[in-house]
Amino acid sequence: MWQRLLGMYLNRLIRVGSLSLTLPDGTTHHFGVPDAKAPTVGVAIHDTATLRALALNPHLALGESYMDQTLTIENDDLHGLLELAMRNIAAGHDSWLSRLRERVRDLSRGISQRNQARRSKRNVAHHYDLSAKLYDLFLDADRQYSCAYFRTPQDTLEQAQVQKKAHIARKLLLKPGMSVLDIGCGWGGMGLTLAQEHGVKVLGVTLSEEQLKIARARAQAAGLTDRVRFELMDYRAVQGQFDRIVSVGMFEHVGAPNFQTYFNTVNRLLAADGVALIHTIGRFTPPGSTNPWITKYIFPGGYIPALSETAAAIERSGLITTDVEIWRLHYAETLRHWYTRFMAQRDAAAALYDDRFVRLWKFYLAASEQTFRFAGQNVFQIQLARTVQTVPQTRDYLLRAQTTDHRLASSTR
Amino acid sequence: MWQRLLGMYLNRLIRVGSLSLTLPDGTTHHFGVPDAKAPTVGVAIHDTATLRALALNPHLALGESYMDQTLTIENDDLHGLLELAMRNIAAGHDSWLSRLRERVRDLSRGISQRNQARRSKRNVAHHYDLSAKLYDLFLDADRQYSCAYFRTPQDTLEQAQVQKKAHIARKLLLKPGMSVLDIGCGWGGMGLTLAQEHGVKVLGVTLSEEQLKIARARAQAAGLTDRVRFELMDYRAVQGQFDRIVSVGMFEHVGAPNFQTYFNTVNRLLAADGVALIHTIGRFTPPGSTNPWITKYIFPGGYIPALSETAAAIERSGLITTDVEIWRLHYAETLRHWYTRFMAQRDAAAALYDDRFVRLWKFYLAASEQTFRFAGQNVFQIQLARTVQTVPQTRDYLLRAQTTDHRLASSTR
Repeated sequence: MWQRLLGMYLNRLIRVGSLSLTLPDGTTHHFGVPDAKAPTVGVAIHDTATLRALALNPHLALGESYMDQTLTIENDDLHGLLELAMRNIAAGHDSWLSRLRERVRDLSRGISQRNQARRSKRNVAHHYDLSAKLYDLFLDADRQYSCAYFRTPQDTLEQAQVQKKAHIARKLLLKPGMSVLDIGCGWGGMGLTLAQEHGVKVLGVTLSEEQLKIARARAQAAGLTDRVRFELMDYRAVQGQFDRIVSVGMFEHVGAPNFQTYFNTVNRLLAADGVALIHTIGRFTPPGSTNPWITKYIFPGGYIPALSETAAAIERSGLITTDVEIWRLHYAETLRHWYTRFMAQRDAAAALYDDRFVRLWKFYLAASEQTFRFAGQNVFQIQLARTVQTVPQTRDYLLRAQTTDHRLASSTR
Repeated sequence: MWQRLLGMYLNRLIRVGSLSLTLPDGTTHHFGVPDAKAPTVGVAIHDTATLRALALNPHLALGESYMDQTLTIENDDLHGLLELAMRNIAAGHDSWLSRLRERVRDLSRGISQRNQARRSKRNVAHHYDLSAKLYDLFLDADRQYSCAYFRTPQDTLEQAQVQKKAHIARKLLLKPGMSVLDIGCGWGGMGLTLAQEHGVKVLGVTLSEEQLKIARARAQAAGLTDRVRFELMDYRAVQGQFDRIVSVGMFEHVGAPNFQTYFNTVNRLLAADGVALIHTIGRFTPPGSTNPWITKYIFPGGYIPALSETAAAIERSGLITTDVEIWRLHYAETLRHWYTRFMAQRDAAAALYDDRFVRLWKFYLAASEQTFRFAGQNVFQIQLARTVQTVPQTRDYLLRAQTTDHRLASSTR
């Protein structure tokens, strides 16, 4: 029965590319039609419990069975399998059961993404309080754990992360002495860079104790403690007003029920002539739910916003949107770099945790990459102000600054 | 009684700047507190009917009584009065009656903005079939009846309109021979420019017979009839697919109930590797209603979109938003130019129509300008595609093209 149910699902789903599925009884079944422009993937399911789990809840069970090795992929072509799944799901061929589940998750996000202060701290700890050594294995030296900005496909990850910070700094229109609030400061890289290169004062807040420890140590080591302060603090508890607010890769953790609170808080904390820059993963598709495997294993309480619901909260907050840049494949490239680095260090990762964790992380990085390539994820950089005069009336200030960068880069070569 | 009602309203409303109001009985009443940073305006109401109309429906009656001269302004400081009104309304001090009216208009937009094909044609005729001579009085030579792009405050209107077209052309990533659909082509200026400067083939559609006549005559005169075709056609009736779609200042006429149809149509008409650029007035405030004077006298069926509702329709259409540029004060500058030109030609306008029409048009241009300065209106340029690969992965293509423009400009000086 589970075999028939899964077969019906895959028959409906696989219209682009092809899948050969070997079942616990040793039989092999083919779905879709081989096509040079789409993956051909072989998969084996090794027990009936996995067959049942995949038939009932494929979006959760695929990652779980891959972690448990009760599902294996020919040549371990994880990216191929994920591309095959996502392209067909994005084409609208998912099962009614999966879509029903998604609808239920969507309707229940008031509960699953409520993210009041205590829950937020627990959710953050789940991911960001993992061993600092783990992040050392695949991030750049500055620990930028968000999308890098590739000016050319040949850029290294290190270059692209430097460019990301520079790009954001330009949009913040910084002047020496300004006060900057960094909401979700991570391991401190953004705040330290802004203080060092632009002479601003920074308050960075995080809910991760591991991140705080490292961020503070880095500020100390850089001799910047007079200008850069890191605190373990919920952004909703911050007081005062700041000339600039930056928030990179944090909005994904806010949860749809809190979007209004988030932007009301930004509005409250921003000076009357202030500028804010929110950098977040986004979805091109309408508001919906979060993948259940990601919620369970990677980002509890997380939610990838659509522009429509984000803009609605901004409009109600009284803030003015002054620019929306939309990065498409930059995060796919970033994740490919992280994947390659991580896989080169897989033994070190297994020594930190275990082999199942390595497969979990590998699945996370590969699935995230393919979501940007094939399933409508992107990055929004939303620039905000409180008056129509604050930000220059053309985007030429971004271009001029960039031209200067070029000149600097070539003169120091 | 009307006097008391209007007094209560103005007492509540005027918190920034001040108003001296002279009533039909000759008494003068003061509202607000004089303030160097806000207008001080004197207004006289000349009959009781106007007093009543202003008390009951100020958003409609202000424009009507100004047109009828039953309300006059000291030194004819129309911009000052509108600034005073808009700044205080934007600060949230409007009356409950006005807000209730707005809510009713909002709820009834399914009817007032239904804009099926026949109604759309009538609505368009109301404004755009006005004498071509009228538009000659205040537009630039190319008849660009939409927001110009001021690279510097010193730019002339003619320059700024050329820059607007160039800016849009860059975002369209044109190549010679491409097919371009211009939805709402006006008097043909955009289509003719794209064909002439970029070697593309253009189909421009309008619902205005006056615009069509002039656009066709211009194509003939320019010897471009082999590459540029103008048709009297509802955009929903267009067939085929186009490499590029451009739509400037037309989305304001679509009406909220038709946003989904609009973007579904763009998606249907756009080639798989196509790029579209939608240029429209927008609001920073949440979705709401249209000013009743504007609906009655200027743009029946029109509606200024918020980004949230526009993005929601785009997300559901399957299109991908690749960039959102937001112009703030450019339309205020454009409208100031139009106002100045129009006022210099007011006798010619009165000869075409009459003095009341001159006041109507003057109120329209002044009120529109102040809406961009003080009441949360802006311009959205939304670039759309169907795949994540179509548009270059950084905005550098805009920069490079612009640098080239500069070089061209200086080498031809």
